[in-house]
Amino acid sequence: MLRIGMLTSGGDCQALNAAMRGVVKGICSKRDDVEIYGFQEGYKGLIYSNFKMLTSRDFSGILTVGGTILGTSRQPFKLMRVPDENGLDKVEAMKHTYHKLNLDCLVVLGGNGTHKTANMLREEGLHVITLPKTIDNDLWGTDMTFGFQSAVDIATDTIDKIHTTATSHSRVFIVEVMGHKVGWVTLHAGIAGGADIIMLPEIPYDINVVVDAINKRKAAGKKFTIIAVAEGAISKEDAKLSKKELKAKKEKQKYPSVAYEVAEKIQKKTDQEVRITVPGHTQRGGSPCPYDRVLSTRLGAAAAEAILDGDYGYMLGVKKNDIVRVPLSEVAGKLKYVDPKSSIIKEAEMTGISFGIK
Amino acid sequence: MLRIGMLTSGGDCQALNAAMRGVVKGICSKRDDVEIYGFQEGYKGLIYSNFKMLTSRDFSGILTVGGTILGTSRQPFKLMRVPDENGLDKVEAMKHTYHKLNLDCLVVLGGNGTHKTANMLREEGLHVITLPKTIDNDLWGTDMTFGFQSAVDIATDTIDKIHTTATSHSRVFIVEVMGHKVGWVTLHAGIAGGADIIMLPEIPYDINVVVDAINKRKAAGKKFTIIAVAEGAISKEDAKLSKKELKAKKEKQKYPSVAYEVAEKIQKKTDQEVRITVPGHTQRGGSPCPYDRVLSTRLGAAAAEAILDGDYGYMLGVKKNDIVRVPLSEVAGKLKYVDPKSSIIKEAEMTGISFGIK
Amino acid sequence: MLRIGMLTSGGDCQALNAAMRGVVKGICSKRDDVEIYGFQEGYKGLIYSNFKMLTSRDFSGILTVGGTILGTSRQPFKLMRVPDENGLDKVEAMKHTYHKLNLDCLVVLGGNGTHKTANMLREEGLHVITLPKTIDNDLWGTDMTFGFQSAVDIATDTIDKIHTTATSHSRVFIVEVMGHKVGWVTLHAGIAGGADIIMLPEIPYDINVVVDAINKRKAAGKKFTIIAVAEGAISKEDAKLSKKELKAKKEKQKYPSVAYEVAEKIQKKTDQEVRITVPGHTQRGGSPCPYDRVLSTRLGAAAAEAILDGDYGYMLGVKKNDIVRVPLSEVAGKLKYVDPKSSIIKEAEMTGISFGIK
Amino acid sequence: MLRIGMLTSGGDCQALNAAMRGVVKGICSKRDDVEIYGFQEGYKGLIYSNFKMLTSRDFSGILTVGGTILGTSRQPFKLMRVPDENGLDKVEAMKHTYHKLNLDCLVVLGGNGTHKTANMLREEGLHVITLPKTIDNDLWGTDMTFGFQSAVDIATDTIDKIHTTATSHSRVFIVEVMGHKVGWVTLHAGIAGGADIIMLPEIPYDINVVVDAINKRKAAGKKFTIIAVAEGAISKEDAKLSKKELKAKKEKQKYPSVAYEVAEKIQKKTDQEVRITVPGHTQRGGSPCPYDRVLSTRLGAAAAEAILDGDYGYMLGVKKNDIVRVPLSEVAGKLKYVDPKSSIIKEAEMTGISFGIK
Repeated sequence: MLRIGMLTSGGDCQALNAAMRGVVKGICSKRDDVEIYGFQEGYKGLIYSNFKMLTSRDFSGILTVGGTILGTSRQPFKLMRVPDENGLDKVEAMKHTYHKLNLDCLVVLGGNGTHKTANMLREEGLHVITLPKTIDNDLWGTDMTFGFQSAVDIATDTIDKIHTTATSHSRVFIVEVMGHKVGWVTLHAGIAGGADIIMLPEIPYDINVVVDAINKRKAAGKKFTIIAVAEGAISKEDAKLSKKELKAKKEKQKYPSVAYEVAEKIQKKTDQEVRITVPGHTQRGGSPCPYDRVLSTRLGAAAAEAILDGDYGYMLGVKKNDIVRVPLSEVAGKLKYVDPKSSIIKEAEMTGISFGIK
Repeated sequence: MLRIGMLTSGGDCQALNAAMRGVVKGICSKRDDVEIYGFQEGYKGLIYSNFKMLTSRDFSGILTVGGTILGTSRQPFKLMRVPDENGLDKVEAMKHTYHKLNLDCLVVLGGNGTHKTANMLREEGLHVITLPKTIDNDLWGTDMTFGFQSAVDIATDTIDKIHTTATSHSRVFIVEVMGHKVGWVTLHAGIAGGADIIMLPEIPYDINVVVDAINKRKAAGKKFTIIAVAEGAISKEDAKLSKKELKAKKEKQKYPSVAYEVAEKIQKKTDQEVRITVPGHTQRGGSPCPYDRVLSTRLGAAAAEAILDGDYGYMLGVKKNDIVRVPLSEVAGKLKYVDPKSSIIKEAEMTGISFGIK
Repeated sequence: MLRIGMLTSGGDCQALNAAMRGVVKGICSKRDDVEIYGFQEGYKGLIYSNFKMLTSRDFSGILTVGGTILGTSRQPFKLMRVPDENGLDKVEAMKHTYHKLNLDCLVVLGGNGTHKTANMLREEGLHVITLPKTIDNDLWGTDMTFGFQSAVDIATDTIDKIHTTATSHSRVFIVEVMGHKVGWVTLHAGIAGGADIIMLPEIPYDINVVVDAINKRKAAGKKFTIIAVAEGAISKEDAKLSKKELKAKKEKQKYPSVAYEVAEKIQKKTDQEVRITVPGHTQRGGSPCPYDRVLSTRLGAAAAEAILDGDYGYMLGVKKNDIVRVPLSEVAGKLKYVDPKSSIIKEAEMTGISFGIK
Repeated sequence: MLRIGMLTSGGDCQALNAAMRGVVKGICSKRDDVEIYGFQEGYKGLIYSNFKMLTSRDFSGILTVGGTILGTSRQPFKLMRVPDENGLDKVEAMKHTYHKLNLDCLVVLGGNGTHKTANMLREEGLHVITLPKTIDNDLWGTDMTFGFQSAVDIATDTIDKIHTTATSHSRVFIVEVMGHKVGWVTLHAGIAGGADIIMLPEIPYDINVVVDAINKRKAAGKKFTIIAVAEGAISKEDAKLSKKELKAKKEKQKYPSVAYEVAEKIQKKTDQEVRITVPGHTQRGGSPCPYDRVLSTRLGAAAAEAILDGDYGYMLGVKKNDIVRVPLSEVAGKLKYVDPKSSIIKEAEMTGISFGIK
């Protein structure tokens, strides 16, 4: 008998179901004696032994379905070793559930934080296999995460729609794209949507350069400017503050989000009307795009193969067009940022995009 | 020689280009001796005699293109008879342009405010034909305006995407849909997207009823609640205030928009996380949906026919499946609201939707 | 106790699930004591007493899901009174199932053929309520059927995509749109997609006029021509044949479908390359468009209301913007054709569309 | 002065305009003294000196527009050295045009055949830079071509729509996907759409295995089977024939396309109804997907950089996430096939997909 636990953790994204379907179909293609324990709402389900027994039937027909049939929750790794209100040590609780159910392997789908915890569980002796799930594409060790391309598609569609209305009026439009720490979604959606200005967490902006770019467009007879701004975009002044100073400043300013902050700055320095669009959680929603379905299905099947091989302790990732096993110890705790000096930035600038810097 | 002036006024929407294409193709199918004057940016172009000479070629290939090739601007009808900074009487200026160019007819595409002005120009003796353009579907005299269905499609797509992410987390999601005075887009998108609660300007809400609906869903094991709220949704307390009192209150509260106000109220009265999505101007953007393309093409062709008949002073509208000529004098100044007692509201309630009232 | 039978019959279409959800949610909003019998695969399920007991939970989350959770089959009404291979009289079998289960009402979702049978069952004394389901929009007694607008959207999307590739090459493109007897989908998709020529079952075409229209475009410097042809489009010569003669001719010609026939005729008479696209059953597939979701939800809720009123023997239809009860006796056996003299045809012609006639 | 010629050759695809925009914006970001010669309809324009002078304005707003503003035609490389009806040597004609216009570089966008000719022109001493355009993704030297992902998206959407209608009926559905020699689009769309059987040119099928797979599904209670078949799919018997024998056989059989052939074989060996969908040229149409827009923009900008560097004789390609210059001499004449032994095939099989082989 092969006993597999499975959980999805962190912010949800597209293709979680597709990936799990790949894992289960892959295992069941070779083995009949499989039990699948679906832990509910991320690590919480593992901690509190909250699970459902699932069969391969439960994974049929979910290739195209957004969300996760297991539910998810922001993962509580920070508090891991701090007992909860009932005195429960969460790491021990997870180990207890794992051993009590006599699991052969725990399959974890998640992003950066999730991988730290997954690696800790591996260090504690559990068999763990992980899949790189995040719209942010910021996981180390894989060329691409699933969810990313779907999010780019949605953010780009938002910019496309804004484009037609922008051409009718003389305005500055700001589209706020998801990404607190990394700007991959904003960068790709900005290029794909033909944004005029892109503001990323990795490239602190100079508001005067942004304003210059707007004015230059106006002077050239272009009536509108479209700005794609990442949630975590930051001015070069703010980038110099300490974390504590920045937090205090933000709390004082009370902007609902970064788009409102940028809008106010632009309105103070130009005579243009500014409009804001916040597609928000739609970027995590809807059916996964075909790219993500293929990627997640392949990763899932490759995870099944690793499990059937009894080869644990890896994240499955994609390198070029191949699926590879990346040691969890190498993945955990590393983020993949947009490099301001990379060729994609340079290529974007050559097509006229301003990143708000000189 | 037939000389036609054309302008698009007010907020832009989908199918403006499609409608103009219909007018021009329709006229040119019968007459070779046509001159088309495209006034830029709405009534402004007529006032300041800012126009381009266009040919039927300019209207080829724009059936599917969003926005308006003429540009538009919020229309300045309130100030019509008040001279501008240069002492210009705007109504006289428009008449002057019309007569100077020796126009046979002015074709105006716009919403409610635009129609008031168009009717005034008619009263001043100009030949005017109008087309009912607005995402709000609030024009009197037509079953449907173009732009509406496209906006519903986009707002519904937003709710659809939120649905998949909502099922993964335990949250309340608020989607803010366009509509300051009327709730047609919110109502249709809310039903189409399967929203649990719909809040309309025409049905002032009781926050306690809203909160009850949320709690009832939670008690029934449904993890999430989706709320479609119109920009102009209003609480029953605020609905009792005078316009002045309300304005003062709003300015004090400083909510970026109604979704933030509703979110705060819900967070105070429940233990649920709330997330906000504001699709904003995307609802006016993108290619018109097929429904709007057919409607606008038909309206445009019928406008051409009226012009060829020399039958002026009408808005073209749709009644059942026929295009009809509706006297401008009957249209101007009337809004078509959602009737809280209408059958669509009752049908929506039967499928479990709460409108925030008992 | 209220016992409701339900079935979907005929070719499937979008919003069948949405409509059934409306019925069930509507009934369950007023009554707790409800039993729902879902007959499998259309009238077959009623004949052979093949059903599943369903609860309101089964109808949750299916608003946006295409297809039908009950399955469907081409309905066997022609053979109704002819015993099957086991000597079974099908009408008696249906009545037997109905009475055996002690049903209060049978809810039938279907098109033209389905309605004939439903009316027969009504005449046999059963309580029947029907909903107008068909992509063809050819049911008498309602302004609109659900499924139609979704099919138009898909066929239009096909034409849109062909448009971009058409502009790159010098070719004639034929898009074959569903509709054997009526041309509503082809007409609307053709207008919405900007087709140059539209060929409908109701307007027998003259191939020489079609060829003239193609040559005229070429002479005017337009490189491509797009033709939207309904499956049932017919030449004026063939329209004069008897049913039997036509059948014999078609069998001899062995064209896979009408597009291939039209293509061959055009290739014989012009020097242009011709390309064929057959979107086929995709036109019945995918998530219902928002328009159909609203329409089907309203119709479903109104059906629930009729059932709760104990008012049977009706199809629910839409007139203007209201849902109405239309006596089944008036609906059965009537088709709603495109009228060649209607205003929409005239309006389409004014925008330059040729219907292949002089 | 920098004089750039540009042409698009072969079957059109998405993102041709986006790529050209990237080239022109990239060059104009560094140089003011640029002349752009847009050759019409592929190499024909170069042969017959048929071009338009273009400015950067012509490339504004075309990022999202399908097709090619230059037009294209199947490229005549086979006849290159054979004089045409007027005794014209085409290679000399192209060289003549190039030198007459005093071009600094010729930018060529195309697929496999196009690259052979481009390399020949390079060998003749012209400065050539190429961009890898094809929905087939079969070009050697780049991980990915633009057009491919857009085509996969459209083919997948077709399969998705068929899925919902398939679940309502008991049928076999065949979706014919573009790809005569290589099966990349079919493979990816098949996996993404959840096809049950995938038939590729690279993996000759055994019809008995295909039929077994269908019957096995039926026996397992699954009502339908979806088959994604590439245009160039071939049976193992036919794969053994010589080119000449195969051609003779095909001409005798007169199937409109491969889907009809496969359908007939299945209908002979099973009792299931079969339905065919041929999305055809839609797979080349519509707006490029965001993935292709980013890829083509980057490739275009990188081509600009190569030109500004005066570094000619390359195709721009993507390796991992970087844009690289690949010598044309290495690219020309090589096709990138699906390897039947590659990991993606194995992963697909693990998720239950049959490739029609044992």
